[in-house]
Amino acid sequence: MRAATIRDEQIVLEDHPDPSPGKGEVLVEVHAAGVNGADLLQRKGLYRAPPGSHQDIPGLELAGTVAALGPGATRFKEGDRVMAVVGGGGQAERAVVHERQLMPVPESLSWAEAGGVPEVFTTAHDMLFTQLGLGPGERLLVHGAAGGVGTAAVQLGRATGARVTATVRNESLRDAVEELGAGGVIPPEVFGEAGPFDVILELVGAPNMPGNLTALENRGRIGVIGIGAGAKAELNLGLVLGKRATVCGSTLRPRPLEEKADAARRMERQVLPLFDTGALRVPVADTFPLDRAAEAYERFEAGGKLGKIVIVTR
Amino acid sequence: MRAATIRDEQIVLEDHPDPSPGKGEVLVEVHAAGVNGADLLQRKGLYRAPPGSHQDIPGLELAGTVAALGPGATRFKEGDRVMAVVGGGGQAERAVVHERQLMPVPESLSWAEAGGVPEVFTTAHDMLFTQLGLGPGERLLVHGAAGGVGTAAVQLGRATGARVTATVRNESLRDAVEELGAGGVIPPEVFGEAGPFDVILELVGAPNMPGNLTALENRGRIGVIGIGAGAKAELNLGLVLGKRATVCGSTLRPRPLEEKADAARRMERQVLPLFDTGALRVPVADTFPLDRAAEAYERFEAGGKLGKIVIVTR
Repeated sequence: MRAATIRDEQIVLEDHPDPSPGKGEVLVEVHAAGVNGADLLQRKGLYRAPPGSHQDIPGLELAGTVAALGPGATRFKEGDRVMAVVGGGGQAERAVVHERQLMPVPESLSWAEAGGVPEVFTTAHDMLFTQLGLGPGERLLVHGAAGGVGTAAVQLGRATGARVTATVRNESLRDAVEELGAGGVIPPEVFGEAGPFDVILELVGAPNMPGNLTALENRGRIGVIGIGAGAKAELNLGLVLGKRATVCGSTLRPRPLEEKADAARRMERQVLPLFDTGALRVPVADTFPLDRAAEAYERFEAGGKLGKIVIVTR
Repeated sequence: MRAATIRDEQIVLEDHPDPSPGKGEVLVEVHAAGVNGADLLQRKGLYRAPPGSHQDIPGLELAGTVAALGPGATRFKEGDRVMAVVGGGGQAERAVVHERQLMPVPESLSWAEAGGVPEVFTTAHDMLFTQLGLGPGERLLVHGAAGGVGTAAVQLGRATGARVTATVRNESLRDAVEELGAGGVIPPEVFGEAGPFDVILELVGAPNMPGNLTALENRGRIGVIGIGAGAKAELNLGLVLGKRATVCGSTLRPRPLEEKADAARRMERQVLPLFDTGALRVPVADTFPLDRAAEAYERFEAGGKLGKIVIVTR
């Protein structure tokens, strides 16, 4: 099979042996696979794939059809449309995924859309709801809201009754983020005046943290997922105490099977139905065929996009 | 009634009108009232009592007998031994407390011990269990373990099956903290080598935070309650993400009635029974009569104590 492959910090197309499904696993004919920030870090040698995942084929998510079942795999049948968060190896023509990690693809989604769902919607849902307990009526601030996780978070907040404010640096993308459900879309420089917020999703990095804590409501929660703008944050513990604040971080990729499976079950119950009702959609900024995967990475790196860059493999 | 009173950043004894219990409230004849760090801050004008509490009579906790019931108060009867966390006014001969904030005093506790229970045991229990979900088998690190909250936390960890390590700066107090249930008692300088820890209770302040994060196990939680050594912490968000760490802060005093009452109910169910079984005790470093309250503050400030300083009012 052909796969996007990391060679000397470049993305090239190479042939690899077809993977074969072991016990409880499913062989997926990949139709689409989103590009994520972690892929770009991995390409530069800054982020190793977790043990047991392809070290040289990137791709943290995929959508495709079931091509074969390993021994004991019973959740799906050949031809079913499935998608998943994976530890790596998604940007290839075929991939093997444990059936407990797989989710069905909602009927209303195209392949390109489905390929862009697993990583960002699971990340946003897991942080906002499973970790931070975002509730209806609460005021949610999403920093860096035009990206993949950001557009997912804005929509999830809106769909569940939270009141959403979004920061978007690129002025030309603000209207689009507002259409996704943000009650207010503002430049990052002024978010301090737009608070207080009950929940803040940090997708940009350390420079926002002092302002986040100041803009946080008592008993507020800050979830940190993106730190592209810097990792060394200053934290005023006096405010953390006084506000009884919580700060937590998360990543999806290194999680073991049972945690990825648990997150997938929550997605099936709470998120996937909302694509078919129209409450959620997948903004796809651009798609590239597999043999132009390197361009997909360049497009991602250039920024200024709304939502996902997706590699379409067939 | 006589009460410890803050005048010009000093503790003096003054006469105040007796308080009278309103709807749902109880008049308590105070027998003992612990001294806490917040009292010392308040004495220096650095910590205002929350609205509705005495601004000039300090004291965040008390134990005594029920002297009279306000309209609608039904949980206790005259003569019952009760104790509570209060917003202020505990270091007086009498105090009025809402009956939902009151807890019964365990039979095995003396008045001096009971006066030292509410604030530190509620604070430690609320942070370790209600907020951080400490579980049996987990590795707990308590910084500043010889103080009031520290001695409570070490014992609560031990009593519930956690594996407890404690840092204690004063060498002469380390054996006593070990007797309370810490598996290891170490100088604060070396805690980084004693990890990893699942839960860290920070009672000292910001200087420990970089080391805390380094010593934290994946999915570990840091609870910050004491910041006497500094409030401006450096937080490496890369580690917060990579370890999926949680940092949260807490204070008890400004909480509204419903939250203090909820914490008191949890104390009644999960903590108070363990005093009568002998699993928990109250280390009282020293007691002072009410007319020597100023000396109690000096003793607290001098440090080098194990557990509580308590003012005995009758």
